[in-house]
Amino acid sequence: MSNSSPTAILLAECSDQAGIIAKVTHFLASNNGNIIDLEQHVDHQDKHFFMRVEWQLNGFNIERESIEKEFKQQVADQLEMNWSIAYSDIKLKIALFVSQHGHCLFDILSRYQSGEWPVEIPLVISNHERYRTLVENAGIDFQHLPITPSNKQQQEEKQLELLASYQIDSVILARYMQILSNNFIQNYPNQVINIHHSFLPAFPGAKPYHSAHERGVKIIGATSHYVTVELDAGPIIEQDIVHIRHNDSVEDLKRKGQDNEKIVLSRAIRHHFQHKILVYKNRCIVFD
Amino acid sequence: MSNSSPTAILLAECSDQAGIIAKVTHFLASNNGNIIDLEQHVDHQDKHFFMRVEWQLNGFNIERESIEKEFKQQVADQLEMNWSIAYSDIKLKIALFVSQHGHCLFDILSRYQSGEWPVEIPLVISNHERYRTLVENAGIDFQHLPITPSNKQQQEEKQLELLASYQIDSVILARYMQILSNNFIQNYPNQVINIHHSFLPAFPGAKPYHSAHERGVKIIGATSHYVTVELDAGPIIEQDIVHIRHNDSVEDLKRKGQDNEKIVLSRAIRHHFQHKILVYKNRCIVFD
Amino acid sequence: MSNSSPTAILLAECSDQAGIIAKVTHFLASNNGNIIDLEQHVDHQDKHFFMRVEWQLNGFNIERESIEKEFKQQVADQLEMNWSIAYSDIKLKIALFVSQHGHCLFDILSRYQSGEWPVEIPLVISNHERYRTLVENAGIDFQHLPITPSNKQQQEEKQLELLASYQIDSVILARYMQILSNNFIQNYPNQVINIHHSFLPAFPGAKPYHSAHERGVKIIGATSHYVTVELDAGPIIEQDIVHIRHNDSVEDLKRKGQDNEKIVLSRAIRHHFQHKILVYKNRCIVFD
Amino acid sequence: MSNSSPTAILLAECSDQAGIIAKVTHFLASNNGNIIDLEQHVDHQDKHFFMRVEWQLNGFNIERESIEKEFKQQVADQLEMNWSIAYSDIKLKIALFVSQHGHCLFDILSRYQSGEWPVEIPLVISNHERYRTLVENAGIDFQHLPITPSNKQQQEEKQLELLASYQIDSVILARYMQILSNNFIQNYPNQVINIHHSFLPAFPGAKPYHSAHERGVKIIGATSHYVTVELDAGPIIEQDIVHIRHNDSVEDLKRKGQDNEKIVLSRAIRHHFQHKILVYKNRCIVFD
Repeated sequence: MSNSSPTAILLAECSDQAGIIAKVTHFLASNNGNIIDLEQHVDHQDKHFFMRVEWQLNGFNIERESIEKEFKQQVADQLEMNWSIAYSDIKLKIALFVSQHGHCLFDILSRYQSGEWPVEIPLVISNHERYRTLVENAGIDFQHLPITPSNKQQQEEKQLELLASYQIDSVILARYMQILSNNFIQNYPNQVINIHHSFLPAFPGAKPYHSAHERGVKIIGATSHYVTVELDAGPIIEQDIVHIRHNDSVEDLKRKGQDNEKIVLSRAIRHHFQHKILVYKNRCIVFD
Repeated sequence: MSNSSPTAILLAECSDQAGIIAKVTHFLASNNGNIIDLEQHVDHQDKHFFMRVEWQLNGFNIERESIEKEFKQQVADQLEMNWSIAYSDIKLKIALFVSQHGHCLFDILSRYQSGEWPVEIPLVISNHERYRTLVENAGIDFQHLPITPSNKQQQEEKQLELLASYQIDSVILARYMQILSNNFIQNYPNQVINIHHSFLPAFPGAKPYHSAHERGVKIIGATSHYVTVELDAGPIIEQDIVHIRHNDSVEDLKRKGQDNEKIVLSRAIRHHFQHKILVYKNRCIVFD
Repeated sequence: MSNSSPTAILLAECSDQAGIIAKVTHFLASNNGNIIDLEQHVDHQDKHFFMRVEWQLNGFNIERESIEKEFKQQVADQLEMNWSIAYSDIKLKIALFVSQHGHCLFDILSRYQSGEWPVEIPLVISNHERYRTLVENAGIDFQHLPITPSNKQQQEEKQLELLASYQIDSVILARYMQILSNNFIQNYPNQVINIHHSFLPAFPGAKPYHSAHERGVKIIGATSHYVTVELDAGPIIEQDIVHIRHNDSVEDLKRKGQDNEKIVLSRAIRHHFQHKILVYKNRCIVFD
Repeated sequence: MSNSSPTAILLAECSDQAGIIAKVTHFLASNNGNIIDLEQHVDHQDKHFFMRVEWQLNGFNIERESIEKEFKQQVADQLEMNWSIAYSDIKLKIALFVSQHGHCLFDILSRYQSGEWPVEIPLVISNHERYRTLVENAGIDFQHLPITPSNKQQQEEKQLELLASYQIDSVILARYMQILSNNFIQNYPNQVINIHHSFLPAFPGAKPYHSAHERGVKIIGATSHYVTVELDAGPIIEQDIVHIRHNDSVEDLKRKGQDNEKIVLSRAIRHHFQHKILVYKNRCIVFD
């Protein structure tokens, strides 16, 4: 869907109860808000309600700076909602972390440079120099922070300083081969996206393509998820697979898998910056 | 989604305008209707609005026999909606038409007999005797109406009589190899579902697997669509594909294709009896 | 590929060495054998060679009863091959084991009754009476052997007796919900095929759809494999997946998964009776 | 499959007859050639035989400069084969043609720069300046040849001169939006690869995504094929699809389709430079 007027996007969840949609849409309609997209989901097992509404700001009777206050008072408080509002004309600021594998980086830069993605990517951090030229030619600052066992904590502090100074909202681990500390992760809850090169929960940890080859599977996968303190166990945003055959070596799995990884990661990033994801009980509701 | 209480399902479409969802959900909420599913779609190019809402009848303040009248007066008329309301506890009555290929018939009977599908299938009509025992053992009446060029119109009249006498709502052409007359089709608008064994609009008409083999495609498809008077040109409900290789003969395409056909047809039937489909400008909006 | 003349099918594996294909094809060509299909695979890591050759018996200069002896003497012994020869006109005898879920059974019977599969299915064994009529109407004997913790060993002995008396080659567990004993499995090495309703090695054991829902995966899988004494760890023949969304309940996963299970199982059975599978180091080479 | 020793790759086709594989493999084995891959295909309908064999040059008793002569005399002439031999250590020289859409270009450069592809790409020709920096930073010459109706023939002559001067083997149309002349195409038979953004033969020609949206299909495709004088009708190398929904606008189809296009094109290029493709009767045999 495309629409040129700026929009507001509400993501909300609360206990299921009668009349939620009526209350939210009445709030919008009575203030002349034109809804261009609405999706809802009820988890009947957990009796929980989830919603995403997008409406045009042009013609909406509430000033942008008052929307949150009004929504809170008129709707959210009485429904005891968890909620957030984003605006389509405020671009998410994203930093990329990358190591030696460039396929995800290339894929992201291709979309960024073509204008496919309405985001800002002002910063790439890498523990290797390899992609400096590529990144800088795309007009993005490149910071080389090599990691050793002894300097890891120190370098992570520098990473956090850089993220703060660039006012980064979200971090994409584009095949970044270092594990982040709990401290780092807790600073960016549901804002760090990783791509794992297996169909989680199968083959977590290192060398999943070797494990897949050893087990003789006929399919390999890739999983994009929010990073949580438990390794490879965060809420899953997107997964896809590639079929393989007995004559595929581990090298073939890596090559075929990389095509899958980059597409899966880029789809997840898109859901994220379009504010289509709600996380609940370590699961992602993705209104795609 | 499953829910044991009976529900009402509204399908509606109208010109896009502000406040539609608010009006509909206010109607439901003010009558104590608990929404268990709501989906909407705006075609921004055509400025047209589409909606499906499902709510629980238990606790709803309007009696079932008055719902349509009240909805018309309170909501639909002022929005100039096209709309219909169905009820989850009123099972759709389906007739199957089949010829010599049994794979779709088997697939449908499997679901019917296992209780997967809350529909009634009281009647199978075939131009061959082949599947009489299978059908009758499933507790379904089997009517053999062989077709020749000279008796075609006459037999179709018998088909229509049978459909009427069994109070059939929808007809599934489960690889029925005869073309229906315009008269038949117009009697059941958007109620006759066909499975065509190609990825339409590629390879319409007869022998699509031969054409696919001749052209050397690497993928074969299947398309389930509502039947309209123009052959193989009705609104598409569901499509899927199978990958093939150079060593697949026409016979292999038929075999691999049949696995695809039966799954695609059964998915389309499910969308249909769940009242998830709106047809607009020869396209299907499928709220899946 | 289809070919009306009966064929012989050689499956062979040995240490990789120069000249294997030349020796095998020279053996065939010098005896006027017309090859209609040849596939080979070299595992370069393990330095191991695998081969499948199919040739026409019409015109072949060696009598059928002497082929094995001649191949052994002229080719196999000097290459230290493990090998077997099957004949396309000798139908595999298959028994089906089934419990309460009928979707795989229906799918198999559909193929069997349409003549898609050149196999014999003389016997279905079930721990429930549910599918007796369906099976018997297909002209197949149905044996009801209910299982309780106390009679399990006894009933398995009866199963083995039945398999022996029907001269069964291979057993298909078509969603049979009982675990076979090691004794049973070792009687039919690489001849018992199971369908597990997850993407192994993810979610082995019971209730994989519940686990998948709990973990919030975006894809569910099915795995067909030869049964070995370690549960759900046998060599994988075929796998495929279905995409799911956040609004799919556990019931939806079961329903969508069943469509996948039956197709995956039937593909695996086809590879098996076409003698396209070699098992090596708990992995399947499938010459599909 | 990976193997460090240089290899020779034979692609051959001829009328089907007994003993072909035996003759070819005897030629190799008797000269101490170690086969690392062999694939064959018999088109039983056309009674035609196709083969690809790859063997190690290390240890092979025939000098490289004599291989073709010896193979011709000892094998090919008596079988009346069409055949060619390539060598894994002689890299194919590829030129890319590109217009305004960069997604395929980015994808190709990503593989090229990572070393995934053992080819040489010395030249990019474009009718726009847009990707000059990207291309030049990859170490590739960029030639800007804008096309107008009046200069088209003239510019094509320059293109052909450039291809000749760079000794280009194969041309990749990476979403190049100009139609090549018959003269150009006939200079590079089965050496010009195009990516068409539909599932051919559906939606040939311009604006396939608009046509797909108009028709209401549920799947969009991409087709990579060799370019022949008939537009969008050349032999198909690779196809794949993406599922779409009713809420995908034409812009969404373009975006989702581009992910598919780049993967399909890159797979086709890989088959091509690995000498895995034989073209026969406007169909591709792809030994993948």
